[in-house]
Amino acid sequence: MRIAVLGVGLIGGSIGLAARRRLQAEVVGFDPDPGTVERALESGAVDRGSDSLVEACEGADVVFCAAPVGRLVEVAQAALDASGSETVVTDVGSTKRDIVAALGSDQRFIGGHPLAGAETSGVENAREDLFEGARWYLTPKAERSSGVLYDRLQRAIAALGARVQAIDAEAHDRLMATVSHVPHVVANVLVAQAATELARDSERMPEVGPSFRDTTRVAGANPAIWGDIFASNREAVADAVEAVAARLGDAAELIRGGGRDAVATWHAGAAADRRRLLETELSGGPLRELRVVVANRPGTIAELALSLGEAGVNIEDMALHPTPDMTSGAVSLWVAGGEQAARAAELVRKLGHTVSIVGDD
Amino acid sequence: MRIAVLGVGLIGGSIGLAARRRLQAEVVGFDPDPGTVERALESGAVDRGSDSLVEACEGADVVFCAAPVGRLVEVAQAALDASGSETVVTDVGSTKRDIVAALGSDQRFIGGHPLAGAETSGVENAREDLFEGARWYLTPKAERSSGVLYDRLQRAIAALGARVQAIDAEAHDRLMATVSHVPHVVANVLVAQAATELARDSERMPEVGPSFRDTTRVAGANPAIWGDIFASNREAVADAVEAVAARLGDAAELIRGGGRDAVATWHAGAAADRRRLLETELSGGPLRELRVVVANRPGTIAELALSLGEAGVNIEDMALHPTPDMTSGAVSLWVAGGEQAARAAELVRKLGHTVSIVGDD
Repeated sequence: MRIAVLGVGLIGGSIGLAARRRLQAEVVGFDPDPGTVERALESGAVDRGSDSLVEACEGADVVFCAAPVGRLVEVAQAALDASGSETVVTDVGSTKRDIVAALGSDQRFIGGHPLAGAETSGVENAREDLFEGARWYLTPKAERSSGVLYDRLQRAIAALGARVQAIDAEAHDRLMATVSHVPHVVANVLVAQAATELARDSERMPEVGPSFRDTTRVAGANPAIWGDIFASNREAVADAVEAVAARLGDAAELIRGGGRDAVATWHAGAAADRRRLLETELSGGPLRELRVVVANRPGTIAELALSLGEAGVNIEDMALHPTPDMTSGAVSLWVAGGEQAARAAELVRKLGHTVSIVGDD
Repeated sequence: MRIAVLGVGLIGGSIGLAARRRLQAEVVGFDPDPGTVERALESGAVDRGSDSLVEACEGADVVFCAAPVGRLVEVAQAALDASGSETVVTDVGSTKRDIVAALGSDQRFIGGHPLAGAETSGVENAREDLFEGARWYLTPKAERSSGVLYDRLQRAIAALGARVQAIDAEAHDRLMATVSHVPHVVANVLVAQAATELARDSERMPEVGPSFRDTTRVAGANPAIWGDIFASNREAVADAVEAVAARLGDAAELIRGGGRDAVATWHAGAAADRRRLLETELSGGPLRELRVVVANRPGTIAELALSLGEAGVNIEDMALHPTPDMTSGAVSLWVAGGEQAARAAELVRKLGHTVSIVGDD
């Protein structure tokens, strides 16, 4: 099988590595930056580099377009123009409606979106196992996309290690708006609101709580990527943001009313919702949270993590809650399933820390 | 000096420990639960337990009321009734407007709020150094609170290790609404919205991104505490939530409009705001973020943290970004100041991981 990768950054490079090693495919890489092509060759992400998109597509069975979201339509269109009738062209963009609207009438184009690797970039971070176990959405167009080509594409992607799922392009964008794009908008809005409030009371600058820190962690992140995402998914994001704003209006009314039972029901519902949402993403059992009181001196977290690691307990997520001077605080550790939680708690206690498993009161 | 602590949980117990050891005060503890008083005695948090609030206040120079927020007015009123004219009575509640409105006309009452210890509870987690370096707000009433008593109270609290700051009760509640209470409301609303959206597309349950995980971490947390907080700070919280809702409406409009420059300016502003907000809380220099690509096998995080710890670099905050199957991913580490960031990056590289310092491109 011959595969063309157009754009060999983190995603494109990882596709190349996985395709070469797991599919025994011949991988040709193109990138508008010649230096990137060279680094891709050096790292083994491609068998052959090319300075021409057209040449790279020649004879390819599958073409992966891994350019930035804002340039994907143009790149994928060029790939379709350069390819024969037996080639399937796909992309890896975070939004799907626009590109499917533009190119979906061509039966050779099938949009795609792997949920992997947003936290780093560059071919030097590419890894063969980047997609191992990761969801990879494909957005074929009903009654249009070629069945033979879809079958070939989804087999190739499964061979990279990913779990393929077909989804309607609009449904995809709506889901991504809800679970990914809207949290970014909310984080941006919260910091803007806090900045205004603190400026007004500038002589009283309070320590910012861990809740604020967590909730706003992604504020203003990766401007290049997010500019593209907000632009290409603008309708779904705007709709979802407005829905959240309306819910906030309801919440404000509920809280202002002061009805304790109604507030308690709403609050408990949120806890249940979050548990259910997060449970769906794990295979090892629902996440359990351990709260540990620690001295925040260098080495304490390491000691904890090392002890758990040696015992085979993996820390799925972690949050530190330091006191303002950072000398001490609490740390939350999330592990998969009640059994691991109990084992972890025992290990932590042996180290002399106080620990509780949240919900096990 | 004699100190009475009414309610010996995490906060009351820690006040007792610190007062005994750092102030050489005699500490009398009262709690409605006799078992709690016993545990406080065992752990050395109090010199003497009492089963009577009135008796505990007898001869006290300072009375700390550390009951749950919903019962504080009643407890503090009882303390004022039981105390003489030379006793200062304070509390440790997270909201201040209601209690100051109820009791602030008594010159012996001065509201208080230490920013410490929300992540665990119980006298068994009490620590002498819980307030070390922590902000402790006091809310005296202008032209009403006794100057002599305020002076005594703030000296006592400073001796516990805290940094005292006076603030108007309403301004305090408005600030707490912004930096702490509203993020909780937003988290609740986001999970409710996502739960609705996912139910509609129940055959397509996507992996939930790290942004969603971070943004909703506090959803539905500690229902008992948060019920009280939402009730007693309802006006400020409702106002701030409405302000956030209005900002979200503006953001939705901005995004729907599709103006890339305007969206980019708004997004970059959020990044700058967050940096500024978080910098204010640190003494060791502004936080720098390191992004490390790691295998998420047990022990990797420990190895990282241990290496940094041994070199004296403290990890102020941490976030894991696992791939959906948890086999690998990226981890963000925040350390204080550029010098520590550079040192940390070098250590991480020596361990064979790829690392970048965010912003150092």
